Amino acid sequence: MPLQIRFNDVDKFGHVNNTIYFQFYDTTKTDYFAHVCRGVDWEHIAIIVVKIEAEFLAQIKGDSRIAGQTRVVKLGNKSFHLEQNIVDVDTQEVKSRCHSVMVLYDLERQQTIPLPDEWRRAIMAYDNLPPVYDR
Amino acid sequence: MPLQIRFNDVDKFGHVNNTIYFQFYDTTKTDYFAHVCRGVDWEHIAIIVVKIEAEFLAQIKGDSRIAGQTRVVKLGNKSFHLEQNIVDVDTQEVKSRCHSVMVLYDLERQQTIPLPDEWRRAIMAYDNLPPVYDR
Amino acid sequence: MPLQIRFNDVDKFGHVNNTIYFQFYDTTKTDYFAHVCRGVDWEHIAIIVVKIEAEFLAQIKGDSRIAGQTRVVKLGNKSFHLEQNIVDVDTQEVKSRCHSVMVLYDLERQQTIPLPDEWRRAIMAYDNLPPVYDR
Amino acid sequence: MPLQIRFNDVDKFGHVNNTIYFQFYDTTKTDYFAHVCRGVDWEHIAIIVVKIEAEFLAQIKGDSRIAGQTRVVKLGNKSFHLEQNIVDVDTQEVKSRCHSVMVLYDLERQQTIPLPDEWRRAIMAYDNLPPVYDR
Repeated sequence: MPLQIRFNDVDKFGHVNNTIYFQFYDTTKTDYFAHVCRGVDWEHIAIIVVKIEAEFLAQIKGDSRIAGQTRVVKLGNKSFHLEQNIVDVDTQEVKSRCHSVMVLYDLERQQTIPLPDEWRRAIMAYDNLPPVYDR
Repeated sequence: MPLQIRFNDVDKFGHVNNTIYFQFYDTTKTDYFAHVCRGVDWEHIAIIVVKIEAEFLAQIKGDSRIAGQTRVVKLGNKSFHLEQNIVDVDTQEVKSRCHSVMVLYDLERQQTIPLPDEWRRAIMAYDNLPPVYDR
Repeated sequence: MPLQIRFNDVDKFGHVNNTIYFQFYDTTKTDYFAHVCRGVDWEHIAIIVVKIEAEFLAQIKGDSRIAGQTRVVKLGNKSFHLEQNIVDVDTQEVKSRCHSVMVLYDLERQQTIPLPDEWRRAIMAYDNLPPVYDR
Repeated sequence: MPLQIRFNDVDKFGHVNNTIYFQFYDTTKTDYFAHVCRGVDWEHIAIIVVKIEAEFLAQIKGDSRIAGQTRVVKLGNKSFHLEQNIVDVDTQEVKSRCHSVMVLYDLERQQTIPLPDEWRRAIMAYDNLPPVYDR
């Protein structure tokens, strides 16, 4: 997924500020779920981040052309793990790597909920996952 | 110029927050100058906003496909006026209109500077402007 | 209302980016309504910006101490007009001025609604307004 | 350090968006270095994030009163490790925890540089650190 850099993403050190990478990861992830888990009722279900580990491998300049990659690497009962990259489209250099743990959250009942089976099947098919349950 | 909406651009009212429009206008403007006024030394010269008037005509939802349009409508000695729109790519509806006044600023001498003649000529040709000087 | 500048508010020109001023105006405005119009059901009613005019009078550096000021200057049936400033707390210099027009919006019925009388009275008392109706 | 929540920090799920936490961590960190390592020439030296691990323990609502805490937990030759929290000021609940690895970067020579001895001494005194060198 191509990512558009905005003028104000660049901080006073002349590169994309580290906080913006998480906006990129969020946006790439939203795109992933919109494509893979269709028909989700986002008015009532939220995906909530529990943990994020990100590495910043190289600076991103304001005129770089970059893209985001997302892959589910682990599916628990309630949680799932994502691996994401931000890469330079021209050089294929990986600029940043991110591992995050997410849960589904019912916005009305205000509690976490299990992953629906349709999602599970759709994600496992899309990312070619073995049947692993961790939680 | 197509504009990419990020997950966190949408506020708790479910539409793109009004402050994000100005990020869109800034980014569209940067793209304009990168194309029309090539060879500018952005390490030493800044474009600074003096005044902005924006109208918000219709909400933008997070899954809309939108684009930004920029046109210089007036060229002074030191200032220039932009007209910008944000439009829905699918319906051509104008979501927001913006008129802004900008000046050039020398970052080292910390003062405004006149528009270089090359810029002036490039902009007038690109936007098909009559020769008007206001300031 | 004191405003906190964040590291990433400062852009590559070394000053607070113009798009951030609108976050400041939004936040100052939210604080105003939370204080003056108590008991509003923000789950169902939104305040939507129709028009903004902002002037940028002086740069704001990342280590400045600034504050926001908000005053309602006109009350229509459905709309109201705000005047807002961002000032330097140490020098009292006005860094930016903003005039904006807002409407109330019913999030469920998806339409604008008149200002409730309690709001009208509270605002007129707080800002010492003459009884003007424009719309 | 008290942290100010902005209106547009809250996303469509009604809580502070996860990407904003990193703006909080950045701002708290900047404040730490401004206080502990005085006299640093930020025109020429940057602090760059190499790695961030953050846990999101509880949601933050838009009207919460929160604060950020920063502590250096490890000092290498070129890198240093921070532990940061975001806490609710009223309940003392820890909302998020963050561990990050930073390096110093010379903006002109475009390379990492060792921590100056004055910094090292100031940080070790401030955070009561044992003399550990890891890198």
